[in-house]
Amino acid sequence: MKWVGVFTLLFASLCCAQESGDFKPADTNVSGADFPRVDSASRAQFRVKAPDAAAVKLNFWSGPKLDMAKQPDGFWTVTTTPLAPGLHYYTLIIDGAEVSDPSSHAFYGGGRDASGIEIPEPGSTYYLAQDVPHGQVREVWYHSGVTGDWRHALVYTPPGYDVQTNVRYPVLYLQHGGGEDETGWTRQGHANFILDNLIASGSSKPMIVVMANGYARRARRPVPDLAGKPFGSPEAMKAMQEMAAAFEDDMTQVLIPYIDSNFRTIPDRDHRAMAGLSMGGMQTFQVTFDHLDLFSYIGGFSGAAGPLAFGNEKLDAKTAFNGALADPAAFAKRVHLLWIGVGTEEPAMMHAGLVRLHTSLVEANVQHVFYESPGTAHEWQTWRRDLKDFAPRLFHEGSAKP
Amino acid sequence: MKWVGVFTLLFASLCCAQESGDFKPADTNVSGADFPRVDSASRAQFRVKAPDAAAVKLNFWSGPKLDMAKQPDGFWTVTTTPLAPGLHYYTLIIDGAEVSDPSSHAFYGGGRDASGIEIPEPGSTYYLAQDVPHGQVREVWYHSGVTGDWRHALVYTPPGYDVQTNVRYPVLYLQHGGGEDETGWTRQGHANFILDNLIASGSSKPMIVVMANGYARRARRPVPDLAGKPFGSPEAMKAMQEMAAAFEDDMTQVLIPYIDSNFRTIPDRDHRAMAGLSMGGMQTFQVTFDHLDLFSYIGGFSGAAGPLAFGNEKLDAKTAFNGALADPAAFAKRVHLLWIGVGTEEPAMMHAGLVRLHTSLVEANVQHVFYESPGTAHEWQTWRRDLKDFAPRLFHEGSAKP
Repeated sequence: MKWVGVFTLLFASLCCAQESGDFKPADTNVSGADFPRVDSASRAQFRVKAPDAAAVKLNFWSGPKLDMAKQPDGFWTVTTTPLAPGLHYYTLIIDGAEVSDPSSHAFYGGGRDASGIEIPEPGSTYYLAQDVPHGQVREVWYHSGVTGDWRHALVYTPPGYDVQTNVRYPVLYLQHGGGEDETGWTRQGHANFILDNLIASGSSKPMIVVMANGYARRARRPVPDLAGKPFGSPEAMKAMQEMAAAFEDDMTQVLIPYIDSNFRTIPDRDHRAMAGLSMGGMQTFQVTFDHLDLFSYIGGFSGAAGPLAFGNEKLDAKTAFNGALADPAAFAKRVHLLWIGVGTEEPAMMHAGLVRLHTSLVEANVQHVFYESPGTAHEWQTWRRDLKDFAPRLFHEGSAKP
Repeated sequence: MKWVGVFTLLFASLCCAQESGDFKPADTNVSGADFPRVDSASRAQFRVKAPDAAAVKLNFWSGPKLDMAKQPDGFWTVTTTPLAPGLHYYTLIIDGAEVSDPSSHAFYGGGRDASGIEIPEPGSTYYLAQDVPHGQVREVWYHSGVTGDWRHALVYTPPGYDVQTNVRYPVLYLQHGGGEDETGWTRQGHANFILDNLIASGSSKPMIVVMANGYARRARRPVPDLAGKPFGSPEAMKAMQEMAAAFEDDMTQVLIPYIDSNFRTIPDRDHRAMAGLSMGGMQTFQVTFDHLDLFSYIGGFSGAAGPLAFGNEKLDAKTAFNGALADPAAFAKRVHLLWIGVGTEEPAMMHAGLVRLHTSLVEANVQHVFYESPGTAHEWQTWRRDLKDFAPRLFHEGSAKP
């Protein structure tokens, strides 16, 4: 790094160029970056320097690509129409190269450190840092005999955890989506602030939240050669099932015991929940229904039960989920909460699939909660709202605290 | 995010293309990325897809720009000569746009989420995750009356911290460099693994390490208008001094009391150290010498005492550092460790400045440690080595534990 450059950078946090009109730098920008910026109508302006490029596009992952226009100063710019609130992943396409915006912080999604822009939701503060007691988010490393390596997880401990050292807490296991990792729920989702605020208002019980890495491969298992094997091929499906099974074993045989040994948990099924978004929702349904001895609260955020939600399969309440739903009264007693959510603007197949799952559960008299997030897509604002609805419903039933 | 795309990404962690020869994907890559890759001679190969670009360069921040060559498949590639070990920041320049490499994880440096490539150091495991007990790295938020906002810090707690709840620990405050932030010491520096390994081998005492954000602006202070005011101008110098003073007040008046209230510290000067790299080293010298009532161990890693180290100013031991060195015997009693380090390959002015500071301290009979990291530049391998030498020297002197 050039020495003068280092000093120049110091000014970034001290000096901001003038904004014209109503536009303000997005909260997701790196320090001192004036673009992207957002106005009170939720329109966003993007700008990138690419003096020698022939074509630059803005690529919203949940929307169309927009052509950016070259300015005489070598910068390319574009202004969007009003955007839905929340965090939108995006990339820039510069002469065919799909890259991140140098002005945005990076958020791990789509298997890369992508860009994201935060569009404020007027009146919504539940996912922002407020003047309330804050919990901690802790990075932990645990060695897994299932995968044969050190695995990384994040653990939210509620405010006061270090002070009230005789108190034990229930635990929510909360999983990211495909292409994301264990950092997603705090960096993109602000799960820590959502819990801080819910706990401060008395809406949620204080709880520990564990965010694990959702990818796993068994130790000493050779890397499958999937070259030329498309998605949906028998070889690819087998590889996915092996990954899912390895994750399930790691979570139930290694991670849960690790958490129960290293944190002051209430280590029983009445005080253990699992939820996840998209791929994490499918993992949740697999792990919890295979282990109802371990979990009594279940949440699927835009993802639940694979083919039931996303394929054309119809729920057979007698056989589905290892037969757990066959006796709805017994199920309602055993599982304190079955929660399913989806955004109204998600891809039609996904929205229809989750609505169909909900309808089937109603028809089968299976007690559950169904939540639709209005106006949001397969994106983080849906999942923030999901968590806001889901968390207050946790840990009211079952055995008393030991 | 496209639904099929999500599934395709799942394979990234399952499936790796064949490598030719000796090259292996870098540890700093996102999951499943085959490039960049490194061979046993420490050469690195880079590859980026930019089918419509006219010119693509690889931009090492501590070295020259390299032209990449276009391949018939639309990818651009380049192979370097052998590189020094450690983490090197870099960007790609695609038709004049300086962007991050989509295949690399992002590391906050240079005021942006930049790319980094890790070149292994043969035989060095001290900064890697080993089969030893691991501490936790905790994100904390504290409200600062100095800056008027919520500030973010990372806190390393040593292995066993949650178990041995009657033990109190000394604290090292460890600062990042200019253009970086509080994530640098763990993500780029692996400070947590360095401490885990030093503590496991008995080389270092168990300690808490606090990594704060080094930028601060006082509450209700207007943003200085530095437009047209170059680095070194009176206005710019004043703005920098104000930032440094706000950081000093935040650290000494808010952060230290917060840490002492919320962690089991030994809250006295004999059990409090501060060190930092580059800008963080200058901050360390300012904060500690202004507050020798708070600190007794001082480390400057490639940065110390601004003009003394980097300008042409000569140390006047009678007046320097508020006169603290004027009586070397008294100083040696009061400050248990004064530690200065620099890499032999750092920019000539920087290396010469720190050598001159060392020589001046020798001439003035001021007890200190001077360390030169062989073959490394103003980069993280220098600072990892610094921490490895510095941490074992901490907390052996002064008052006994309470």
